[in-house]
Amino acid sequence: MKQRINRQIHLVKRPTGMPDESCFKVVTSAMPQPVKGHVLVKTKFISVDPYMRGRMNDRKSYVPAFKLDEVLNGAAVGEVIESESKSFVKGDFVVGNLGWQDYFLADEKEIRTVNPDIAPVSTALGVLGMPGLTAYFGLLDIGQPKQNETVVVSGAAGAVGTVAGQIARIHGCRVVGIAGSDRKIKYLIDELGFDAAINYRAAPNLGLALKEACPNGVDIYFDNVGGDISDAVLSLINNNARIPLCGQISLYNETQIPTGPRIQPQLLTHSALMKGFIVRNYAARFDEGIRQLTVWVHEKKLKYAESVVDGLENAPKAFIGLFAGENLGKQLVKVS
Amino acid sequence: MKQRINRQIHLVKRPTGMPDESCFKVVTSAMPQPVKGHVLVKTKFISVDPYMRGRMNDRKSYVPAFKLDEVLNGAAVGEVIESESKSFVKGDFVVGNLGWQDYFLADEKEIRTVNPDIAPVSTALGVLGMPGLTAYFGLLDIGQPKQNETVVVSGAAGAVGTVAGQIARIHGCRVVGIAGSDRKIKYLIDELGFDAAINYRAAPNLGLALKEACPNGVDIYFDNVGGDISDAVLSLINNNARIPLCGQISLYNETQIPTGPRIQPQLLTHSALMKGFIVRNYAARFDEGIRQLTVWVHEKKLKYAESVVDGLENAPKAFIGLFAGENLGKQLVKVS
Repeated sequence: MKQRINRQIHLVKRPTGMPDESCFKVVTSAMPQPVKGHVLVKTKFISVDPYMRGRMNDRKSYVPAFKLDEVLNGAAVGEVIESESKSFVKGDFVVGNLGWQDYFLADEKEIRTVNPDIAPVSTALGVLGMPGLTAYFGLLDIGQPKQNETVVVSGAAGAVGTVAGQIARIHGCRVVGIAGSDRKIKYLIDELGFDAAINYRAAPNLGLALKEACPNGVDIYFDNVGGDISDAVLSLINNNARIPLCGQISLYNETQIPTGPRIQPQLLTHSALMKGFIVRNYAARFDEGIRQLTVWVHEKKLKYAESVVDGLENAPKAFIGLFAGENLGKQLVKVS
Repeated sequence: MKQRINRQIHLVKRPTGMPDESCFKVVTSAMPQPVKGHVLVKTKFISVDPYMRGRMNDRKSYVPAFKLDEVLNGAAVGEVIESESKSFVKGDFVVGNLGWQDYFLADEKEIRTVNPDIAPVSTALGVLGMPGLTAYFGLLDIGQPKQNETVVVSGAAGAVGTVAGQIARIHGCRVVGIAGSDRKIKYLIDELGFDAAINYRAAPNLGLALKEACPNGVDIYFDNVGGDISDAVLSLINNNARIPLCGQISLYNETQIPTGPRIQPQLLTHSALMKGFIVRNYAARFDEGIRQLTVWVHEKKLKYAESVVDGLENAPKAFIGLFAGENLGKQLVKVS
């Protein structure tokens, strides 16, 4: 029987502030064969996600911290190459928390099939996966968009932001994106049909730029980034505004508790709602979400972009790049 | 016909920071007679409320700013002494925004009857008025208390806090109050049945005291005060916590935008909801609220305290006293 060598990316040091490549290490080992009820999966694409930064700290959060000297656990898509399961056959594409590695031995209950005829299998990590569902439930369940309302999305050119903004467009909202490069701004407006988009790195006065882009104030702020950008948006909220808190990427690498203007008075005087969420809160409705997102993708109402880095060994670099905003759309690592 | 002299408290100067008595002035004038559809009301009690501080600033909020050199507009209870209305007769007690003055000429549409047989008429400004309704809707609609959850109330000994805490008790919650004097703490525990109460001025470490009082974390934080106290409570929230923002009295006299630790990461990682509200959002349900509050008062499940200052001319002092936490329960000014 063929003996396969598996490469894994381990977390070998907890980052302080911005992670660098010394926190990660490639470790090789022999890959065992699947036992009954299991399959051997060959990784095609792995997903690098901002939320993983939180798991690199040694503290309690909504998911357990990553352990040191173990494979980094994260979503990936792969192909079944050996099956001892009745649910999967060789050649099936599957998605699951396969981790940052070449091969994965999966319990049949840990993975689900991805149909390559519906869309490229990589989309199971993006628009038709967790990021898409995150945008779907955060915007619709917490944001509750209504026709002609103004929706601001920060991190607008990322995996979640692109979807959130387009769903808001589908619901007849005026959509304003905030992102960090002119290329992203152009993409949001020209390709995704955002009504306006602001490069926060280039705007001499973000507050003023937002005010011009939101002449009727802000009804929904879909927040992926936090920090100063959010301060500027919050100063423009209308009465009964809704603020789904999806991410706070600008703060993930802070080494001290970040401070800023207190927001409660602003929420109070505008009867505004702010709600944090994680996509797993909506697990019971994932099927509904995927179904609707798939329809929109087929109808070309929902477009998506992917930034692909080649080679498992480059996963740490791709992950670190998220914090510099290098990705347009979903950041993936192509493994095989 | 008898010519009555009316005293009014005018706002003559907008306060910077903490208001002082030089911002207010007693002005006298002759009182005209009511015309058709109107009544002449003699003020019994006026209400001084923390939210009025915001209206003393010259900026847009959810209610318009008070105008200078006009009578301060606020809730009051009075007795109809002359009526040109078919809806009211002499001797009726009424509540409305009568203002800080001895007499008020009211359009019959601006006031509603208070039944003195149900409870002392002063309660129409407290437990059976806006403060009671504020607690009722904020706690029940936003807080959504469930049996055995832990509810923390700041400003717990105030007009709203006392009611919010007791409604939480009625719903089977563990209730922890935060207030600013030992007398208040004793009242909350001994009279109102709070499970625990903390004097934030005396606690050497508020965070530690809260942790001890909330061994199972915090599910609902009914926030009347904001600032450092809220920071301490927010650090203890559980997943899916709800935070009705009712007031931020600790910040009302700030002259610069107050800063503090950013709270979005904490809300995000706990899927917590924070929502500002004003009681008027629930105007369509006021009857329901008053009915239920009245039942609880009659059943002795809902107790109330009033702090009464005597004399219209002392209304400014009573108002200023709110910010020093001088009141236990509802702060009233007895006018006649």
